[in-house]
Amino acid sequence: MKPKNIKIIDGGVCAAQGFYAAGLSCGIKKSNKKDLALVYTPFLSSSAGVFTKNKVKAAPVIISQKNLDKGKSQAIIINSGNANAATGAQGIKDANFMKDETANALRISKEHVLVASTGIIGLPLPMKKITSGIWSASRMINKSSSNNAAEAILTTDLRKKEIAIEISFGKNKIIKMGGIAKGSGMICPNMATMICVITTDAAIDPSLLKKALLSAVDDSFNMITVDGDMSTNDCVLVLANGQSLKITNGSSYNVFLEGLKYVCAYLAKEIARDGEGATKIMNVVVNGAKTLNDARMAAKAVANSPLVKCALYGADPNAGRILAAIGYSGANFDPNKVEIFLGNLKLAENGVLLAFDHAKAVHLMKKNEVTFVINLKNGKHSASALGCDLTEGYIKINARYHT
Amino acid sequence: MKPKNIKIIDGGVCAAQGFYAAGLSCGIKKSNKKDLALVYTPFLSSSAGVFTKNKVKAAPVIISQKNLDKGKSQAIIINSGNANAATGAQGIKDANFMKDETANALRISKEHVLVASTGIIGLPLPMKKITSGIWSASRMINKSSSNNAAEAILTTDLRKKEIAIEISFGKNKIIKMGGIAKGSGMICPNMATMICVITTDAAIDPSLLKKALLSAVDDSFNMITVDGDMSTNDCVLVLANGQSLKITNGSSYNVFLEGLKYVCAYLAKEIARDGEGATKIMNVVVNGAKTLNDARMAAKAVANSPLVKCALYGADPNAGRILAAIGYSGANFDPNKVEIFLGNLKLAENGVLLAFDHAKAVHLMKKNEVTFVINLKNGKHSASALGCDLTEGYIKINARYHT
Repeated sequence: MKPKNIKIIDGGVCAAQGFYAAGLSCGIKKSNKKDLALVYTPFLSSSAGVFTKNKVKAAPVIISQKNLDKGKSQAIIINSGNANAATGAQGIKDANFMKDETANALRISKEHVLVASTGIIGLPLPMKKITSGIWSASRMINKSSSNNAAEAILTTDLRKKEIAIEISFGKNKIIKMGGIAKGSGMICPNMATMICVITTDAAIDPSLLKKALLSAVDDSFNMITVDGDMSTNDCVLVLANGQSLKITNGSSYNVFLEGLKYVCAYLAKEIARDGEGATKIMNVVVNGAKTLNDARMAAKAVANSPLVKCALYGADPNAGRILAAIGYSGANFDPNKVEIFLGNLKLAENGVLLAFDHAKAVHLMKKNEVTFVINLKNGKHSASALGCDLTEGYIKINARYHT
Repeated sequence: MKPKNIKIIDGGVCAAQGFYAAGLSCGIKKSNKKDLALVYTPFLSSSAGVFTKNKVKAAPVIISQKNLDKGKSQAIIINSGNANAATGAQGIKDANFMKDETANALRISKEHVLVASTGIIGLPLPMKKITSGIWSASRMINKSSSNNAAEAILTTDLRKKEIAIEISFGKNKIIKMGGIAKGSGMICPNMATMICVITTDAAIDPSLLKKALLSAVDDSFNMITVDGDMSTNDCVLVLANGQSLKITNGSSYNVFLEGLKYVCAYLAKEIARDGEGATKIMNVVVNGAKTLNDARMAAKAVANSPLVKCALYGADPNAGRILAAIGYSGANFDPNKVEIFLGNLKLAENGVLLAFDHAKAVHLMKKNEVTFVINLKNGKHSASALGCDLTEGYIKINARYHT
């Protein structure tokens, strides 16, 4: 549900004042597909990031985490087609070089550039191509290329993921915020091969920005699942260049957070919808949990269950598989109290499957977006997770996406 | 590797002295497929069981766990086609009735019957058919029907899983042990829709038998994974009727445990091989872990990764996906020390992918059984997990196996 003070606008990551982008092909991918994106603002910005929890971190993740320590950045360089992961010392050297060369091309400080990579693991980056691409991108940046940047970060994605909004804080008081994202396989709770860049012209302290980002990511990117794998390269990066309203810890923060959550939730849903081989998505809502963590664990387990995903694909209202997934989720609950709804049709009560209207259930399961609502009747906490179906398409993509 | 003192013999669960079995169709499944199995010994036996860790437990699991408290049993009744799970109070009543009717038909105590069910969740058991089946089975039991019982417990399995061995404890000192199992989908570390019945003529105290079973299950059934789902009905049940050697806590226990591990490992491997849609299996060996738990977590994460499973299917030596799976496994390790081998071909060293012989690697990946050896170089502990590939066949089976 879109809050009334939020308006969808055009422009993606260039919608906010003072942000520029470029996306081009530098030759990492075959057949001239775009594979290098640059997002830039001339204003030193507050910056924050959330990164993969995988112990195996790609080189660019290590470099960006270090540069984010200071909380100030003004450019993000991203390549697709090669993840620069499991590449050892050479990988670190290459990620550093990408960062430094971007700083040189933009004539900014090397400390203010963030870097991200996505694609195949274990191959060295083609640095000659990337270097030349960085210099081209720095000349090409403009206000109308968010869509090119959105395209240049994709790997197995089928669709660009881009949004921009205007958030009203009262009469004539607005900020703009935009985002682009990629992700379709290796998407699991706690992020995965996903990259997201968010820009805003709000003025906000780096630590407050980080707080807002963590909160927004927990409710969005950390609650989507395509296949339960978690990648080495995930990151969500945000730049706030201070060209519009000042956000402080109070009511303006709450409005800002609501906007940031809206952007993250939109992009997360786009990622779930574009899950490898996916034909539809499911929204798993868990209510009545004892703790927020219980609600999250239960929702994620259902959205991540291969059997539930297959049932979704087959339009089979198989509440038994949902019940089994809650059962192994680790969530605290009483199996004899659980209620399960498909949309507004009750499938199970007191942990027992009901003799529901099967035709109606199949009809609901055939929709592009299916919602399961689970009530654990064990407390007051809620959470929701997004997942997609598991299809032959997923197998085809991942059995053939070769090293 | 088969120890020298273990000899493969015929007879399955009827191989050991004083064990009888039956398997028949009572009409739960369509088209006269066998769906009811009975294993019986006239001697009151030591018994032990290991059950699903899923919070949602099927009615027969609850009933059998209760009857196992006393550690003495002499019959096991199992139906397939219907899991008697998520069936509430009626399910408990039905599972109890199955147990009681089996006791009546065999003229034994109701406390000495164990019951198990597998199949679709959430439907009431057809008790009339089952009752009539129980009485037929009790008349049909004989020494040559282990294969019928093995067939009657299958659901989506393609093959019967059955073994029997003779374990030598020295000259003229032998015991016999046999097992049957089912399982192919919903197979995850920590067991899943799997049922296993093991019989032996050894004489062993129930608590010692339980100790041996827990140890054997941890190294076998708890280390197989088909799809990462965990079912409501899993159980491994063992009966020891005391008609041959006495096993005590000492060297005879170690020999007994080795035999029990052999039986469990054999049946676990058969389950992985018969994974829904599987065309081949992988053996993931983790060495050099700091603790046994680290080794197990890392091995399970790799065997359970949908991306690794797809790479296995596509014969793609994708060590990057293996590295990523270890990275999110939760195991304690240093990403910069990891070595990964495919058979004897080294794919990664110090956490960096090598420029290995790709043609040779693809050749190794095309085998029916693929082995990955991972050295974390972080300690002395080892574990191995078994998994299968993820194929279009899995999707077909699970999108169409309707409620």
